[in-house]
Amino acid sequence: MAPVLTLQSTDFPRWYQEVVAKAELAENGPVRGTMVIRPYGYSIWERIQAEMDARIKACGAQNAYFPLFIPESYLRREAEHVEGFSPELAVVSHAGGRQLEEPLVVRPTSETVIGEFMAKWTQSYRDLPLLLNTWNNVVRWELRPRLFLRTTEFLWQEGHTAHATYDDARDYAHRILHEAYEDLMVNVLAIPVVVGRKTARERFAGAINTLACEAMMRDGKALQMGTSHELGQNFAKAFGIDYLSAAGQQETAWTTSWGTSTRMVGGLIMVHGDDNGLRLPPSLAPVQVVVMAIKADVVEAAHKLGADLRDAGSRVVVDDRSDVPFGRRAVDWELKGVPLRLELGSRDLAAGQVTLARRLSGGKEQVALAGIAETVLALLAREQQTMLDDARAARDARIADVATVADAVEACGQGWARLPWAAVREAGEAKLAQSAVTVRCLARTDGSVPDSDTEPDLVAYVGRSY
Amino acid sequence: MAPVLTLQSTDFPRWYQEVVAKAELAENGPVRGTMVIRPYGYSIWERIQAEMDARIKACGAQNAYFPLFIPESYLRREAEHVEGFSPELAVVSHAGGRQLEEPLVVRPTSETVIGEFMAKWTQSYRDLPLLLNTWNNVVRWELRPRLFLRTTEFLWQEGHTAHATYDDARDYAHRILHEAYEDLMVNVLAIPVVVGRKTARERFAGAINTLACEAMMRDGKALQMGTSHELGQNFAKAFGIDYLSAAGQQETAWTTSWGTSTRMVGGLIMVHGDDNGLRLPPSLAPVQVVVMAIKADVVEAAHKLGADLRDAGSRVVVDDRSDVPFGRRAVDWELKGVPLRLELGSRDLAAGQVTLARRLSGGKEQVALAGIAETVLALLAREQQTMLDDARAARDARIADVATVADAVEACGQGWARLPWAAVREAGEAKLAQSAVTVRCLARTDGSVPDSDTEPDLVAYVGRSY
Repeated sequence: MAPVLTLQSTDFPRWYQEVVAKAELAENGPVRGTMVIRPYGYSIWERIQAEMDARIKACGAQNAYFPLFIPESYLRREAEHVEGFSPELAVVSHAGGRQLEEPLVVRPTSETVIGEFMAKWTQSYRDLPLLLNTWNNVVRWELRPRLFLRTTEFLWQEGHTAHATYDDARDYAHRILHEAYEDLMVNVLAIPVVVGRKTARERFAGAINTLACEAMMRDGKALQMGTSHELGQNFAKAFGIDYLSAAGQQETAWTTSWGTSTRMVGGLIMVHGDDNGLRLPPSLAPVQVVVMAIKADVVEAAHKLGADLRDAGSRVVVDDRSDVPFGRRAVDWELKGVPLRLELGSRDLAAGQVTLARRLSGGKEQVALAGIAETVLALLAREQQTMLDDARAARDARIADVATVADAVEACGQGWARLPWAAVREAGEAKLAQSAVTVRCLARTDGSVPDSDTEPDLVAYVGRSY
Repeated sequence: MAPVLTLQSTDFPRWYQEVVAKAELAENGPVRGTMVIRPYGYSIWERIQAEMDARIKACGAQNAYFPLFIPESYLRREAEHVEGFSPELAVVSHAGGRQLEEPLVVRPTSETVIGEFMAKWTQSYRDLPLLLNTWNNVVRWELRPRLFLRTTEFLWQEGHTAHATYDDARDYAHRILHEAYEDLMVNVLAIPVVVGRKTARERFAGAINTLACEAMMRDGKALQMGTSHELGQNFAKAFGIDYLSAAGQQETAWTTSWGTSTRMVGGLIMVHGDDNGLRLPPSLAPVQVVVMAIKADVVEAAHKLGADLRDAGSRVVVDDRSDVPFGRRAVDWELKGVPLRLELGSRDLAAGQVTLARRLSGGKEQVALAGIAETVLALLAREQQTMLDDARAARDARIADVATVADAVEACGQGWARLPWAAVREAGEAKLAQSAVTVRCLARTDGSVPDSDTEPDLVAYVGRSY
């Protein structure tokens, strides 16, 4: 049988496109760069969303909603911000049958409009910290769109907070980075992200510091999976986010913003997928187990088995399409990355057993139906850990420790390079850029996140990126 | 003490505006007609969303996402549809720094773009029914905006389904109306909606039939809380949603669409709110119980009590702001419509009791701390039922049974009128319209939803509406 997909080693970008299409995750929308997220792809996003939302709420932020349309004048108030986003804006000039007096920008992000409201809501130190988050769609015109990775419209959460002090703002930006983003990525998505600080060159437009989670894809390139920004007082000054301190002084607040998007789905595909398709970590998978009735005679038993597994707490689908060839169905569930398949036939059933196929190893074995729910739950937990371990080993094997920018460029043909930040600096970044390599982030030698880029002994992770 | 709000009887629209502002539900956005939904308002919406999403999924539909931008040409393919929406469209003419070749419409609803993809995904009868739902934001330019009720941008779910037969499409449109919409509104929002069929005049642009849930506000006006449309083959023909039948014939599908929006929050406010503010049904309330520490000496005990109630399954906030005057705090929780307040003082505590204040009745009583969790849960269930009963009684008292269009107009000064549809018809609708009265829906005398507007003995509910 011909392979279902182009091999990763043959053409990784084509493999990616094919997985997205054949696993029915997403398609291009009618307007260039836009995306239709199909039900299976959306069910993955919904689970990421729910896990992220719970973590953000645990960090104390509350959800709210801010408008899609922003007056163009708002963006101009923060100079770096408007410069950063201008080339990507979509502009509404007509509405309700007439030309608008002031053109409206479709939000590329909401710092400006939220800044306006934070200024209203922040009167005294008692109103701080003000911790907001919002789930919405944003638009940034993309010239080279790729489903999930770079789309003109994407779905995301953007958090926005205001604090009384620099320290409090900094701490919160770090807290979100670790407790919401890193925790979700490592423990649910099974993606071993490197967390660190961006260089000045790579900062968000208007930030004084950008923190990021960076993941390595199976082609050795980096994907920025989430960022958390300290905005200093830039937006607070531009929008008048002031407060009366406990001492009775009028003070300017410190703000942060942080975001993760549907791009994470792209990362999930490219970190775990193999030549047979998607592989989903059990903690995230919308379907953890598929019970396949091999023929019509076991459909009833398959539903009974499915119900038992569901009662035990697994997410289960019963595939009772006994009129569709078994091989085609099995290939389809592999493509979709379902961690475990239970293939039930009448002979199995009579013998009190079922065939268990593991997506991760590809192996098959007979297991007893007695105690199957426990077997499945234990295996799901084990596969989750294995996926994280495997991804970490694969990543580490492709990080080369080098000493010079030239060697770093060389190493980035296969993966990332790690070298002393002292050997890079702004001049080195410019040189790396000539080979389309960027500093993904700066970290301390113990892996922790530095407080500034002038700390001694920092290491730079560099690589090509999406 | 001066009343916190304008009385409903003095000026209902002003009362509404004030509740929305003072309970911190929402504010006007910077662009006319847009809305900022504040955290407390959004927490109400999130709970409505979760309840609705579960019901929609129980009806078999899957969530997906479709793009914000729709090529203008798509809208033109269905003649009535484009005519209905043209005056309300927002149009993007520039993006990415250049003029677009074809202007893009910001979706006012997604029938057209979803129709395009249904056509791709529907090949054979095996692909049907195709049951999709999507949560998103849509834009319809509003000349007379009102927070939650009519906003230029609003949040909603829109369901879109394709079926092999007329019957199957009709049944599904009715199923959503009853099992998702009516059930949520009655059993969670405690709003006794009238369900029925729209007249041809009031139908959705492009539908062959529109079903609706109509609620009566406390000023006697009607609010359309949700609609479910049979689209016949109009969109299927315009977008080529065909399928190969089991018999091997190429057939045209039948489609439906259905939606509910943030407008439901407006309905919730206007059905239940009173002169002291919002009143939220316990099943929906983001905060069901607030435990108020009267002074600093009971803060710890208040948190302990809060934790106990939470463990028992209530949604609880502990108000430990002992430095804010008690009266101000109590008024604020009343404004926000929290069903139960437990006011804890040191003397209460010593006596093993707490003061229970009920938002619904306004009454206060001493209750024992022993068994308090059970007391609270039982009371929440009772208040939920009371709110529904009260709303139904209030509605029924304001529905006048009349015989003629002239009497109906007269009665609509106070509430709704109910009269034989045979006494209205198209000519009567035109006459009602002169007094800004519309037929809200048609129902059978037993309250069930008619299959056509030519059935004998139908009754028309008529009223003024938002």
